[in-house]
Amino acid sequence: MKVAVIGSGAIGMLVAASLRSHDVTIYVRRKEQMMSIRERGIEVRRERSKEYTYPDCQRFTYDGTWRKADLIIFAMKQYDIQPLLEKLQIDDRQLPACVFLQNGMAHIPLLKGWRSPVVIGVVTHGAMKSNDRVAVHTGEGNLFLGELNKSGEPTAHLLASEMIQGGLKASYEHKIEQSLQQKLVINACINPLTALYDIYNGELLECEEYYSNLQALFYEVIQVIQIESVEEHWETVRRVIQQTANNRSSMSVDLRSNHKTEVDAILGYILEEGRSMSVSLPLVTFLYHSITGMERRQSS
Amino acid sequence: MKVAVIGSGAIGMLVAASLRSHDVTIYVRRKEQMMSIRERGIEVRRERSKEYTYPDCQRFTYDGTWRKADLIIFAMKQYDIQPLLEKLQIDDRQLPACVFLQNGMAHIPLLKGWRSPVVIGVVTHGAMKSNDRVAVHTGEGNLFLGELNKSGEPTAHLLASEMIQGGLKASYEHKIEQSLQQKLVINACINPLTALYDIYNGELLECEEYYSNLQALFYEVIQVIQIESVEEHWETVRRVIQQTANNRSSMSVDLRSNHKTEVDAILGYILEEGRSMSVSLPLVTFLYHSITGMERRQSS
Repeated sequence: MKVAVIGSGAIGMLVAASLRSHDVTIYVRRKEQMMSIRERGIEVRRERSKEYTYPDCQRFTYDGTWRKADLIIFAMKQYDIQPLLEKLQIDDRQLPACVFLQNGMAHIPLLKGWRSPVVIGVVTHGAMKSNDRVAVHTGEGNLFLGELNKSGEPTAHLLASEMIQGGLKASYEHKIEQSLQQKLVINACINPLTALYDIYNGELLECEEYYSNLQALFYEVIQVIQIESVEEHWETVRRVIQQTANNRSSMSVDLRSNHKTEVDAILGYILEEGRSMSVSLPLVTFLYHSITGMERRQSS
Repeated sequence: MKVAVIGSGAIGMLVAASLRSHDVTIYVRRKEQMMSIRERGIEVRRERSKEYTYPDCQRFTYDGTWRKADLIIFAMKQYDIQPLLEKLQIDDRQLPACVFLQNGMAHIPLLKGWRSPVVIGVVTHGAMKSNDRVAVHTGEGNLFLGELNKSGEPTAHLLASEMIQGGLKASYEHKIEQSLQQKLVINACINPLTALYDIYNGELLECEEYYSNLQALFYEVIQVIQIESVEEHWETVRRVIQQTANNRSSMSVDLRSNHKTEVDAILGYILEEGRSMSVSLPLVTFLYHSITGMERRQSS
């Protein structure tokens, strides 16, 4: 199977490595990264192992060969999806199966109604890009794969089993939109607070004042994001924080290293939902402005 | 007139200097500061002048001579007032006229019903302590003085005219509680946001995202603090920020230099008011927890 992986962050590299028994091409933006992957392959580091894979590597262009793959995995950040789709004016009838691995949910409405198979992935693996060709798999989680439309179902099943064979924990998830929502709530609670306070995730549980704010934010967010069991999900948020206590959230890291954060994909989406439901979200609004303001200040 | 000034921050020193034609004693906590003031006097620096005053200086003790002055000026931070009053078990019949110069309003209820003359001062002067004996008068503002009870009225008038003679802009203010409330709103808006973002006051106007948060916070605070004209007062907040654009708020400075902040006197008081009026204050609550959490983290 010809697989195109677009985006070469930690997740893109992990996924490309897990599909090495296929004909994988990874598409990158910068020439330096292309040269580096072509020369030395992708390296996935785990606690007790290093694994090398040698996919083809090409620079991404809008009319590139990636459009002719059997399966396209979109592994870039969420904020790059919408401009890409607009630029391509993609006719979904001409596309093969597509897999989307972004945080947040702002891109989901754009994909509804597509006729080509669409699969959504929710990643709970801990992963960090260490350099242009090295991904560190810091925490074993899961990659939940599920279809956004009926035609995506076989792809979701197939992909999960291929990934497992390639050494990456993955599973088919029938209620993938619900998983996306649950992850959105977790991201919406942990990321902006850790970014604002410049702290490790664990401090949200250790400091009782931060913990109060975490809780208030959680109850505000779930007013607009459907969660089946609120109590259970609150426990999940706490557990995720415990498991990632010594990590910095991506938003906190992005903010301090002058990268664009995913605040629009996460809090921006929640604010949109709030507006459409006429629910006022004072804390989400405050945090959205705080992060976007800090982002602009850092970059200026 | 025998005047006792308790507290030797920037405001305590400015006030003591302005009353130098009287028999002033300034009460301090640390021996080093006492020695320094005794040896070299208090120095007030202004843009184009330095002024030296040589008041008596004593260490503060609970049973000290300060209780026998004709006028006691309490110039310590707000959070030191309540423990002092409790420790002294002050019988207000035995006290001379008392003047309170704190930020916030949490101490006001403790003073209601006193029979000895009570005067409240609202300071809008910009002042910074540069070292143990030097106060820098960074911005000419005003010291509004007004009575909290009928018997305080003559003292408020007298003190204002004595301060003016001593070179410090001051005036009698009939509606002093209203001035206190207005200053409380200003402090509640500027201080926590600048402390949280670690910014100069002016950035609250320059960065549109911070400005949105400032505005939301203002409208939340005035739900529980009576302000006569809302629009006018919002303009006052903006004007104060413009005038102090290059300053750091006391809360921001205190937080970064590991001092206790006045968050209880300011936001804590507003939360109390909210509780007693059954008004929910999500942003004030969030900021209160943010600042107290950061305070604890810095000091640990």
